[in-house]
Amino acid sequence: MAIVIIRQDDKIELWKNALLNADSSLEVYSYLEEHPKDEITMAVIWKHPTGSLANYPNLQCIASAGAGVDYIFEDDKRPKNIPITRIVDPFLAGDMSEHVLAVILAHLKNLNTYKLDQVANIWSPKDYKRIKDVTVGILGLGELGALTASDLSSFNFKVQGWSRSKKAIDGVKTFSGADEQKEFLKSTDILVCLLPLTPATEGILNQELLSLLPKNAFVINVARGGHLVDDDLIALLDSGHLSGACLDVYHTEPLPKAHPFWNHKKVHMTPHHASVSDTNSVIPQIVENYKRLGTGEKLQNLVDADKGY
Amino acid sequence: MAIVIIRQDDKIELWKNALLNADSSLEVYSYLEEHPKDEITMAVIWKHPTGSLANYPNLQCIASAGAGVDYIFEDDKRPKNIPITRIVDPFLAGDMSEHVLAVILAHLKNLNTYKLDQVANIWSPKDYKRIKDVTVGILGLGELGALTASDLSSFNFKVQGWSRSKKAIDGVKTFSGADEQKEFLKSTDILVCLLPLTPATEGILNQELLSLLPKNAFVINVARGGHLVDDDLIALLDSGHLSGACLDVYHTEPLPKAHPFWNHKKVHMTPHHASVSDTNSVIPQIVENYKRLGTGEKLQNLVDADKGY
Repeated sequence: MAIVIIRQDDKIELWKNALLNADSSLEVYSYLEEHPKDEITMAVIWKHPTGSLANYPNLQCIASAGAGVDYIFEDDKRPKNIPITRIVDPFLAGDMSEHVLAVILAHLKNLNTYKLDQVANIWSPKDYKRIKDVTVGILGLGELGALTASDLSSFNFKVQGWSRSKKAIDGVKTFSGADEQKEFLKSTDILVCLLPLTPATEGILNQELLSLLPKNAFVINVARGGHLVDDDLIALLDSGHLSGACLDVYHTEPLPKAHPFWNHKKVHMTPHHASVSDTNSVIPQIVENYKRLGTGEKLQNLVDADKGY
Repeated sequence: MAIVIIRQDDKIELWKNALLNADSSLEVYSYLEEHPKDEITMAVIWKHPTGSLANYPNLQCIASAGAGVDYIFEDDKRPKNIPITRIVDPFLAGDMSEHVLAVILAHLKNLNTYKLDQVANIWSPKDYKRIKDVTVGILGLGELGALTASDLSSFNFKVQGWSRSKKAIDGVKTFSGADEQKEFLKSTDILVCLLPLTPATEGILNQELLSLLPKNAFVINVARGGHLVDDDLIALLDSGHLSGACLDVYHTEPLPKAHPFWNHKKVHMTPHHASVSDTNSVIPQIVENYKRLGTGEKLQNLVDADKGY
């Protein structure tokens, strides 16, 4: 039994040390160093090179080091029928909720526009909006969406949410299924996408759906770049139907320097950092699952391969 | 009995119409038109020309059209010993509280820095802070300060407040007087100035006071430009003691285009618009006081001339 860490950023050593700090008896390797491939039973991964998971004949668990797992399903060469787990981190959901609150308030109080004014040496007071006067609609009511909806409601926003299957959340008006999506969108002033990325949700933020929002609606995408049809968003911003958008995620990250989002006055960008896994808070659940592989106990935070999340 | 409106912006007609809408029997004049000066008993003013109040021999009440009254006391030619009233508007305090929340969250989540990065075509994720990890200190616990403190506490911030005389606010640790100011400042990560501007508080945000904040503290001034010593703030930002500041108010407004705040990367500016009187919500209290002048009843929202607020 051993663990391999596979990721293409500069965080392999950070994760290796964090795992060894949690339990110094673990056998942990970077996929870049010499390592006994047939001993590897768990791969702890984040945006691994396509095909790299096929090197481990005795793999028993693919553990995503984040909440998202869409990148695993995109890898056709991955070993199938092996359990996939993801991070369910209370901080991840709380951090997302705080980020969304910050972005919504910055929009209501014109902070991004004032920052652009400051850069341009322009003094131009603008009307602000109040929390009580806007309805926030959350698209996707999983771990992150449900907590964000609930938090915004406790902060006195009018909140509604849409999900594939019906959910109940205190203080939140919920809609479900294709039938109720139009009604949900028509009454949403600020749309927050927190859906998982699956074949069913890819490109869901397109001309057709976004046009159903009322005029001057604002769009926040903190899920995955693949949810959004970039050109459709730009067309609706330029036509004046949408008042603005704040994006944390993009089709390619970092976003290529020539992409029109960079210079668009109505697009406010953050660099995929709304909510990031804190190794200290997520290591224990990975170590726990690794122990369960040894004892045969059921793994925590399993992904449903049919749903894709 | 008649009312004169004195202000130097473009809102005289707006106020005149709003007063007449509330009660069409009122006699209301702009100070710029022909009007019977000895019939004027109430002046509804905002940043009036110095000396202009001395034109009314039978004035019985000076009604500030906003929460602030400092500009009245700065006018040495004003008629003394006449009651001064100010606006106590539930929206004013609520709007201020929401603005302060927006500014604090934008700071915790690096939104202003990300906007500058976007303008410069730079992708650079930065660590964010969580609500639970910062202590907000409110300087001044009047109408606006008390509500802001209370709201931030209900949003799970650690909140403390300082005021001249001791106040008690649920969920807020309070300090008072000169003796406790140092202890208050030492444990404040984000300082919010909501003091009234009086001779005692003018220039209070200076090198000496701001140096008592811990390293990397953030300063928000939403009270009056006169509270801040601009050069002292810039020195502490440049030395790295303070991590940034968000200012809504300035010594001169609009802020002159050559002022160093405009181009300072750590100064985030809003154009004195954190919280503005909404004529619809404040007209009734002015009309009520005007009626009380007729009946001799005690006026609402009187200013204490000795305290200056």
